Amino acid sequence: MLERFKPREEDLVRITEPSLRQSVAAIFEKMGVSPEDAAEGANTLVMADLRGVETHGVSNMLRSYVQQYNEGNLNPRPNWRILRESPATATIDADKGLAVILGPKAMRMAIDKARVVGMGVVSMHNAGHSGGIGHHAMLAAEQDMVGMCMTAGGVMVLPTFAAEPRLGTNPIAIAAPAATEPPLLFDAATSAIAGNKQGLAMRVGADLLPGWISDSDGVPIMEETPVRPRGEYYHLPLGGTREQGSHKGYGFGLMPEVLATMLSGVAPTMVDPSTTGSKHYFAAYNIAAFTDVDQFKRDMDRMLKTLRETPPAPGHERVLYPGLSEYEEEQDRRANGIPLHNEVVEWFEDITNELAVPGLSMV
Amino acid sequence: MLERFKPREEDLVRITEPSLRQSVAAIFEKMGVSPEDAAEGANTLVMADLRGVETHGVSNMLRSYVQQYNEGNLNPRPNWRILRESPATATIDADKGLAVILGPKAMRMAIDKARVVGMGVVSMHNAGHSGGIGHHAMLAAEQDMVGMCMTAGGVMVLPTFAAEPRLGTNPIAIAAPAATEPPLLFDAATSAIAGNKQGLAMRVGADLLPGWISDSDGVPIMEETPVRPRGEYYHLPLGGTREQGSHKGYGFGLMPEVLATMLSGVAPTMVDPSTTGSKHYFAAYNIAAFTDVDQFKRDMDRMLKTLRETPPAPGHERVLYPGLSEYEEEQDRRANGIPLHNEVVEWFEDITNELAVPGLSMV
Repeated sequence: MLERFKPREEDLVRITEPSLRQSVAAIFEKMGVSPEDAAEGANTLVMADLRGVETHGVSNMLRSYVQQYNEGNLNPRPNWRILRESPATATIDADKGLAVILGPKAMRMAIDKARVVGMGVVSMHNAGHSGGIGHHAMLAAEQDMVGMCMTAGGVMVLPTFAAEPRLGTNPIAIAAPAATEPPLLFDAATSAIAGNKQGLAMRVGADLLPGWISDSDGVPIMEETPVRPRGEYYHLPLGGTREQGSHKGYGFGLMPEVLATMLSGVAPTMVDPSTTGSKHYFAAYNIAAFTDVDQFKRDMDRMLKTLRETPPAPGHERVLYPGLSEYEEEQDRRANGIPLHNEVVEWFEDITNELAVPGLSMV
Repeated sequence: MLERFKPREEDLVRITEPSLRQSVAAIFEKMGVSPEDAAEGANTLVMADLRGVETHGVSNMLRSYVQQYNEGNLNPRPNWRILRESPATATIDADKGLAVILGPKAMRMAIDKARVVGMGVVSMHNAGHSGGIGHHAMLAAEQDMVGMCMTAGGVMVLPTFAAEPRLGTNPIAIAAPAATEPPLLFDAATSAIAGNKQGLAMRVGADLLPGWISDSDGVPIMEETPVRPRGEYYHLPLGGTREQGSHKGYGFGLMPEVLATMLSGVAPTMVDPSTTGSKHYFAAYNIAAFTDVDQFKRDMDRMLKTLRETPPAPGHERVLYPGLSEYEEEQDRRANGIPLHNEVVEWFEDITNELAVPGLSMV
C-alpha cells in the first residue's frame, strides 16, 4: 500500500487475531447467520486484515454488511441454488447471501469440479459483497490449483472518454502455489484505485493522486486532489487517461462484467439498476491436469525468487511480487496482532455492546 | 489507435484483401508450410489487418516469421503433440510451430471441450508468435462461447520498482458475442504499450509518451521521448509508475506467465532463457452451459449499446467499447481494401519476387 494510505502509528490499536475472529463471527450470528457461516465470514474478513488488505477487512465494509442485514438487503440464511450445471461449470443464484460467506463455498465447488474434469468455473449473481477476492482465489492455491476470482457490480468507473460512469471497480484476482516461496497472490481493482481506498484516504486524511479520479464532467484530474463528496467525482479506469492506457483498464473492467455478470445470467448494473447485488466469478485450474505439480511449484519458486531478487531502480529498496508483502504482513500480524484504526475500534466497542457479544482484546 | 501512430495518408497503399491473403499464404507455403496451414496463418494475419490492428498484421512480424523459418527457429511442419489431457484441459508441445497457425487449432480444441463439459482450456509451449490473440478469442465468440487468450514470452518489461526487465509484454484478450451489436473484442498488452508499437512509432516517426518506457536504469521516463535503440530502454507495465498503478499492470502481466507458461509445464523466459519461443493460453466458455444463450446475447447488446451511447467527456467525440472500432475498420477495409505503409508494400515486392509468388494487387 502507498505510504499515503497508511495510518499514523499512534492511531493504531493492535488486536489479537482470535478475539477479532470471535467478535466478527458473533456479530454475523446476531445478524441471523448460522454459526458455521459466521465463522466462514469472519475468516474471509480476518484473512484480509492478516494479509494487510485493510480495505477489505473488518474496517470498511463490516458496518455496511450489518446495515444491509438490518435493512433486509442481505439474507442471513440464503436459499442459494444452482440454476444450471455442467461437469466444469455451475451458475448460482445467491438469494441475497453475502459472498464473503458464499464465495468460499463457490470456490470449493469449482475446486471439486477441477479435481474431476481439470477445470471448474462457478458464476454467481444476486449476491452481496465478496470481501477481498484474493482470499477465495487462495483457497484453490492451497489445493494445488490456480485460483481466479472476479467481481462485478455498481456504477462508479468511467469508460475511457466517458462523462458518466458505467462500470464497477470490478476487481480481478489470481493465486498460484509455490514450493517454498510465499504464493503468488494478485488482487486488484481494474479502476485506478479501489473504491474502498476513498474511505481509507478520508480516514487517514490523504489526498488522491493525479489520474485516479475525474471531475463530475468526466475530465481526468491530473493533479493531487482532496477526497471529494460522492457525486462530485468518478473513478478512472486503471491507466487514468487514454494516453496512459485507460482503454486497457476499461477493457480489464469489462472482463468481470462478461464472466461474472453475463455468464451468471443477468445484465450489468449499468443497464439494469434492478439487478442489485454483486456478481462473482470463481475458477479453479487443477495443475495436475496440465502438468507435473512438483515441477510447477519448483518453477514458481524460481520465478518468484527471480522477481524479488531483481535489482531495484534508483530510489527503491526492493522489488516485490504480488503476495509477498501480504505474506510478510501475515507473519507479523499473526505474531503481533492486527492493527486497527482507533476509529474502527470505537465502532467495534459500540456494536459489540449494542449486540451484547464479546468485544475486541488488545495485544 | 492513438493519432500519433497513424501513418500519413500519402504513405498508404490500399491492397485488396484477396490478394493479400494469396501473397501471405504463398509466402508461408514457400517456407514449407502445408497449403491448409498456410491459409490458416494468412487468415490470422489478414484478420488483424482487416480489424485495423496493424501491429499484429502483415506489416511487422511476417518478415520476422520468414527469417525464423529460414534460420530453422520455426518448424513449418511441426509434430505438435498433447502432453497431458483431461475432459476440460490439454497441454501442448508445439514443436516450434508458429502459433499464428496453431493458435486457431488450439482454440478449436478448447471449443470442442467446452461443448462437452462446459469449459475448455488449452495451454501451449515451445511455440512461435501467435499474431493478435484477439483473433483466436474471436473464434470462440463465433461459436456462442466466450473466448480468452493470453501469451507470455520474452523479457522486455520491468516489474514495478525494478532496474531490469523480467516479463514479456504478455497480452490478454477476451471476446464475447452479442445479438446485433458488434462483438466485444478486447486484446491488450499488459505493458504500457505493445512491443510492436515501437516499430510502428519508428515507421511513422512518432515520439513515445510519458510513462511508456524507462531509461536503462529502470527509471520511468515521464516526458515525451523519441524511440530509443534496443538496450537503451525498458517497457513499463500498464500504469507506468507505482502511483499510477503499475503494480496492477505488473500483476496482470504475471497472469499469462502462470496460465500460459507454468500450466504448460515450462519455466518463464526470465528464469530459463533456453525456453525460447512463446507460451499461449486458450480458453472457451460454453455460454449454454452457464445460462440461456439468447438472453446472454440480448444482455450483451444492451451493455454494448449503453457503453457506446454514453455521453462523451468534453473534447471527445464518442465513447467506444473494445471491438467497436475494429468492427468498423473491418467493414471499411473489406469494402475499400487494406491500407499498408509504402515501406511494407516494398518489402512485399521484394519477397514475392524473391520467392516467385503472386504480388499484391492495389485497389
